[in-house]
Amino acid sequence: MHAEPIEDLVRLLARLPGLGPRSARRAVLALLKRPDTLLVPLLAALERCAREVRRCSICGNLDLSDPCAICRDPAREGMQILVVEQVEDLWAMERAGSYKGRYHVLGGTLSAVDALGPEELGVDRLVARAAERPGIEVILALGATVAGQTTAHYLAERLAGTRALVTRLGYGLPVGGELNYLDEGTLAAALQARRPVA
Amino acid sequence: MHAEPIEDLVRLLARLPGLGPRSARRAVLALLKRPDTLLVPLLAALERCAREVRRCSICGNLDLSDPCAICRDPAREGMQILVVEQVEDLWAMERAGSYKGRYHVLGGTLSAVDALGPEELGVDRLVARAAERPGIEVILALGATVAGQTTAHYLAERLAGTRALVTRLGYGLPVGGELNYLDEGTLAAALQARRPVA
Repeated sequence: MHAEPIEDLVRLLARLPGLGPRSARRAVLALLKRPDTLLVPLLAALERCAREVRRCSICGNLDLSDPCAICRDPAREGMQILVVEQVEDLWAMERAGSYKGRYHVLGGTLSAVDALGPEELGVDRLVARAAERPGIEVILALGATVAGQTTAHYLAERLAGTRALVTRLGYGLPVGGELNYLDEGTLAAALQARRPVA
Repeated sequence: MHAEPIEDLVRLLARLPGLGPRSARRAVLALLKRPDTLLVPLLAALERCAREVRRCSICGNLDLSDPCAICRDPAREGMQILVVEQVEDLWAMERAGSYKGRYHVLGGTLSAVDALGPEELGVDRLVARAAERPGIEVILALGATVAGQTTAHYLAERLAGTRALVTRLGYGLPVGGELNYLDEGTLAAALQARRPVA
């Protein structure tokens, strides 16, 4: 019905997570109504990202340089690698601000359906990094889901051959979480991880 | 924290309706992970829209040509102008498919806060079009809101000088609507608009 480039734009935006055809249409109209303050700047930002953003060949992070800023930062602890499923998990960890080591981004979990095997997740690369520095700590920060835990289990086995200390994130009550909104699994894990009050 | 072009892209996408900072971040990652199938096509579609889409100088529609396809279509009824607030209302009307006349897109409602006066809404242009063809019908299809109805009232006054027949959309039960979910205003309007059963 509408002009074809507008339809194309709606169709592409609708493929972004969180947007459906309806909200994509609204977004496109917002763009078309504000060409100078929204459409053109967005175009420039996308173009720059398409041209400049690359994947770090060491850890799998997305950045303007390869190796990425984290891998190149001499101030970051070299004896810790935190393994996450996705770049968004790395971003979340960085926002939290308490981790000062390096990363390995898997890009997913082992999955026959999505054709994600050890090669796609860069497991050999991770094992090689771990083997390079005896005594390094590899923190498995995967999701507390079946897929996340299966993958964590596989990684722990693969890392057993190195002299790395393999750990996982603690389970328990989320900070600010209310007991009656939590599922039974979390409550059981929090009980098991209880500590004496100082 | 992240690379500046990525932050720019997140910030700009977060300004689209329906997206917040969180969903914009997810959208950016989806784009960066699929450069060839998503980012580059989106870039091309945006670029084409930025370059080719323009506002119709007759009706205010967005299209690739000025006058737009609807204004240029000789098959569309020339003796009807349907006045809508936004381009999305025109799109909705076209999807419904039952209207075969022309349009006038106001681009909003009269609003002192948003600095939208008769000039911004193209009222003179609408009045001139109505005056050109005596007996033309101007259908006020504005929202059943205070702002919509205030604007409709003003337009009716301005059009009184022309020989246009000014009408408004009927009020009543939405098709598929259930009585017990409707507000009192709609129910009262539907009762008043009752018709004999054929």
